[in-house]
Amino acid sequence: MTSSTQSRTELYAEVQQFYARQMQLLDGGVFEAYADTFTIDGEFRHTPGREPARGREQIVRELHEFHERFAGDPVQRRHWFNHVNLEPQEDGTIRSTVYALVVTVRPGVKQPIIAPSCVVHDVLVREDGELLNRSRRVEHDQLF
Amino acid sequence: MTSSTQSRTELYAEVQQFYARQMQLLDGGVFEAYADTFTIDGEFRHTPGREPARGREQIVRELHEFHERFAGDPVQRRHWFNHVNLEPQEDGTIRSTVYALVVTVRPGVKQPIIAPSCVVHDVLVREDGELLNRSRRVEHDQLF
Amino acid sequence: MTSSTQSRTELYAEVQQFYARQMQLLDGGVFEAYADTFTIDGEFRHTPGREPARGREQIVRELHEFHERFAGDPVQRRHWFNHVNLEPQEDGTIRSTVYALVVTVRPGVKQPIIAPSCVVHDVLVREDGELLNRSRRVEHDQLF
Repeated sequence: MTSSTQSRTELYAEVQQFYARQMQLLDGGVFEAYADTFTIDGEFRHTPGREPARGREQIVRELHEFHERFAGDPVQRRHWFNHVNLEPQEDGTIRSTVYALVVTVRPGVKQPIIAPSCVVHDVLVREDGELLNRSRRVEHDQLF
Repeated sequence: MTSSTQSRTELYAEVQQFYARQMQLLDGGVFEAYADTFTIDGEFRHTPGREPARGREQIVRELHEFHERFAGDPVQRRHWFNHVNLEPQEDGTIRSTVYALVVTVRPGVKQPIIAPSCVVHDVLVREDGELLNRSRRVEHDQLF
Repeated sequence: MTSSTQSRTELYAEVQQFYARQMQLLDGGVFEAYADTFTIDGEFRHTPGREPARGREQIVRELHEFHERFAGDPVQRRHWFNHVNLEPQEDGTIRSTVYALVVTVRPGVKQPIIAPSCVVHDVLVREDGELLNRSRRVEHDQLF
């Protein structure tokens, strides 16, 4: 099903459900399942200036490496999204521009740290009826 | 209408609208109307380790008791939700897993306190065509 | 298309997409395009007690004036919305009550300031098939 035959309404709800599951997987530390929400050759750049991870295996490796910083300092992170702005393209892909805030909670500390503020730039595609990220590029608001 | 006959799209929008109204009622202090968004025998556990309130009357009583702490210290609270992750079950109920942040504002103070970060675990059911919470269990992220 | 002939599902997704685009335009400083999301005679009151801007030209002027405070102190602002509560009215307009938080980021500073907490009161109308704000009134939570 391409964006031209699927209604905007269906697409909008589907992307929100896709993001909800995807980000709960990421924050739950289920990195393999998170990587599976990308295409086989999907690109993921979570930090500006950093080389993107390419393909599911690299994405998983990148996430494990990134999370080593929390090894001796356990945190629960929650990636919040807001204002999902979808722009279906003529080639059937969907540009998605979304605000993001990272909520970081330390054990026993009620007040989380909420930083940084980001903008997520996704290209979504449909393969065998299923939404997937072809790419995700995260920009950080403090770098302007 | 069960989850099998209703489209995922319709359900997703309906749950978002349900939550928007429900939480604006809670934050507006309209506790009876909030309790009416639960089934007759609905369970509501807003704090880990606390016995859940069972049934609408108990939910209202629980909310009045909980808010006594703000009696001499008025606040405006806003419960924010994010990443509504719906999993319709075979028995027609809907599991909903949602991030939440509590925003607390004091009179004359522009900057709110945003804490704690929670995950809401709901079981939603449809009765006479209307969505209701059969149960709500709130987990706090700092308790891990 | 009026709210009576359009499904609640379609309306809900459409309003979310409308807000996503609208607020990304505002935060991107594209004030003319933001003003074009209002009707010709639309009213916009972003601060309590302040006279509302009336019509697109005044809205643009108001936004330019308001942003002069950031002239020597560049910031990236992000207006987050939550709990979009839609109440279609008999006259075909749609009341929309939405939580808002303003996220303000300074260059090089990872942690944003998140304030104030607001409630947005919109009246939305459909003109030539397109959603527009007939009015927007923003209330600030700390003023209670």
